[in-house]
Amino acid sequence: MTVQSLPVKLQDIPTPALVADLTVLNTNLNTMAEHLPGDRLRPHVKAHKATAIAALQAELGHRGFTCATVREVEVMAAAGLGDDLLLANQIADYERLAAIDNARITAAVDSDATIDAAAAAGVREVLIDVEIGTPRCGCDPDDAGRLADKARSAGLTVRGVMGYEGHAVHIVDRGQRSATTQTATDLLLGAHALVGGDVISGGGTGTFDLNTACTEIQAGSYVLMDGEYGELALPFLAGLHIESTVISVSKKGWAVGDCGLKALGMDAGVPTVDDHEVFFYSDEHVTFIPSSPVAYGDRIKIRPRHIDPTIARHDRMYVADGDDIVDVWPVDMRGW
Amino acid sequence: MTVQSLPVKLQDIPTPALVADLTVLNTNLNTMAEHLPGDRLRPHVKAHKATAIAALQAELGHRGFTCATVREVEVMAAAGLGDDLLLANQIADYERLAAIDNARITAAVDSDATIDAAAAAGVREVLIDVEIGTPRCGCDPDDAGRLADKARSAGLTVRGVMGYEGHAVHIVDRGQRSATTQTATDLLLGAHALVGGDVISGGGTGTFDLNTACTEIQAGSYVLMDGEYGELALPFLAGLHIESTVISVSKKGWAVGDCGLKALGMDAGVPTVDDHEVFFYSDEHVTFIPSSPVAYGDRIKIRPRHIDPTIARHDRMYVADGDDIVDVWPVDMRGW
Repeated sequence: MTVQSLPVKLQDIPTPALVADLTVLNTNLNTMAEHLPGDRLRPHVKAHKATAIAALQAELGHRGFTCATVREVEVMAAAGLGDDLLLANQIADYERLAAIDNARITAAVDSDATIDAAAAAGVREVLIDVEIGTPRCGCDPDDAGRLADKARSAGLTVRGVMGYEGHAVHIVDRGQRSATTQTATDLLLGAHALVGGDVISGGGTGTFDLNTACTEIQAGSYVLMDGEYGELALPFLAGLHIESTVISVSKKGWAVGDCGLKALGMDAGVPTVDDHEVFFYSDEHVTFIPSSPVAYGDRIKIRPRHIDPTIARHDRMYVADGDDIVDVWPVDMRGW
Repeated sequence: MTVQSLPVKLQDIPTPALVADLTVLNTNLNTMAEHLPGDRLRPHVKAHKATAIAALQAELGHRGFTCATVREVEVMAAAGLGDDLLLANQIADYERLAAIDNARITAAVDSDATIDAAAAAGVREVLIDVEIGTPRCGCDPDDAGRLADKARSAGLTVRGVMGYEGHAVHIVDRGQRSATTQTATDLLLGAHALVGGDVISGGGTGTFDLNTACTEIQAGSYVLMDGEYGELALPFLAGLHIESTVISVSKKGWAVGDCGLKALGMDAGVPTVDDHEVFFYSDEHVTFIPSSPVAYGDRIKIRPRHIDPTIARHDRMYVADGDDIVDVWPVDMRGW
């Protein structure tokens, strides 16, 4: 859809449509900026994949950003948001990263092979990525000092360490979440003692106020939240939905909306429909049990369990101020 | 990636990358065309979302296609593949459908409201969509005749009926799948007796040779197959994978590839990794237990459980002939 002139009414945009609530977005951005001002937050762009939202975060004083893909770094740099971009995991192609102009780029390395690859490609700054309990990337904490020495010998500037307590961020009980975070960050601080540097990077939305060891927190989902994080009683509100239209109503008691699993991230469980009960999803449809009568053409609102992969399925995000669509932002960091 | 000159080696394309095996694709297309030649098959484009594949299907003699979204109809028409396009479900916006030039378009209707909307929008041809056991769209079979009369009174040409036995297509036991299909198509034939017209449309890859009631079968997934259909002993081969690079290897026994759930449809279960055991997926990564040692830079092949939403997450499909990439096809029907 080309939006000829804004605002248009939410009711008039074609469906299925990804919609962000501007008031909620701004509230979340401000709440986080109060807790973690300026460089205390390194927002993770993988959650929203939209330079328009990154620009709002930069306006609030967060100059550095976290990226998960080379494409995210490329698009952030091209948008003029490249003051301090961290690619927070190892990648297959450090050459592609090193070729990006107009940005200060820090890469993650966790092995001899990735240090060799980054140095050979012309990457200049790195963090030593440390595995602190989440079974994904990162070196053994005890090996971090050796790798830092090797990186420095290879001509790389080692800014410090990073580690992600992904196994902690979704723990519902706050005390348990805090304890798991502390165990993880103790490992990271131990590695940092061996590595040195100014940066200790980690954390996420679920641990934004519990992870006090890191110099910077990589939170992303807080911008619009999702069902998965909704159970943690965090001071951020859910502000993303898929606008959908009812296309069929059965006499047997169900109805069908025009938003299916191709428009949703399904990895964290089944998205919900406001006021109604979801029966099942197929590629382009949701079948639901209405709590009150619905008719062809009625709108329904679908809330994803996990916003990151949901946003990544759409090319654009409609920005709603109440019932008005006041902007349309490209999801310009999607793809690879 | 812009592919400057083809072929390139599979090993040299950036990852994660959606890759189709050309030999498997052609074998599947030919096998299906032998079983269901010409207009006996109305291929469903929602599975592949690529006009390049639809063009191959058209070359084999299938002139009519099935679509799930208005966008799919728009792109098929623009590609010159609009001889006979069926939008096989109700939609929110029949005006957008009726505005498409250069195509013969048939819409599905299943209610007074959708007939009114289609007629008002200027749609000319319809099928009466009948619910035959899958809880989604479609009218009660007993109501199909009344709706056909109403549609004809509204000036619409009623070509016949359609109904989808989605509850049958994945039943592993062939006898049970056949019996469930027969029960469903008996309902559809009953509705057709009330409606008339030349077209009885339905079926899918799982019932392509069991659904003998329909005049045309709407199969889609057969082109490249997926894990979900792989258990049915159908005469089609799996030919789609995500090419991924190993970016991290842990001393604790796992390794990490650069293909996560943002590159995959996760609704039908966890995708597999050839030769290795998947541990878990996150947004941009798969953690797996290698069956034999792997190193940074090694390639792994990931097989989705459900190809339709997997393909829809990518902008392009690399076409492999052995180890050579011989073409790059846009997934030009993705989005809405």
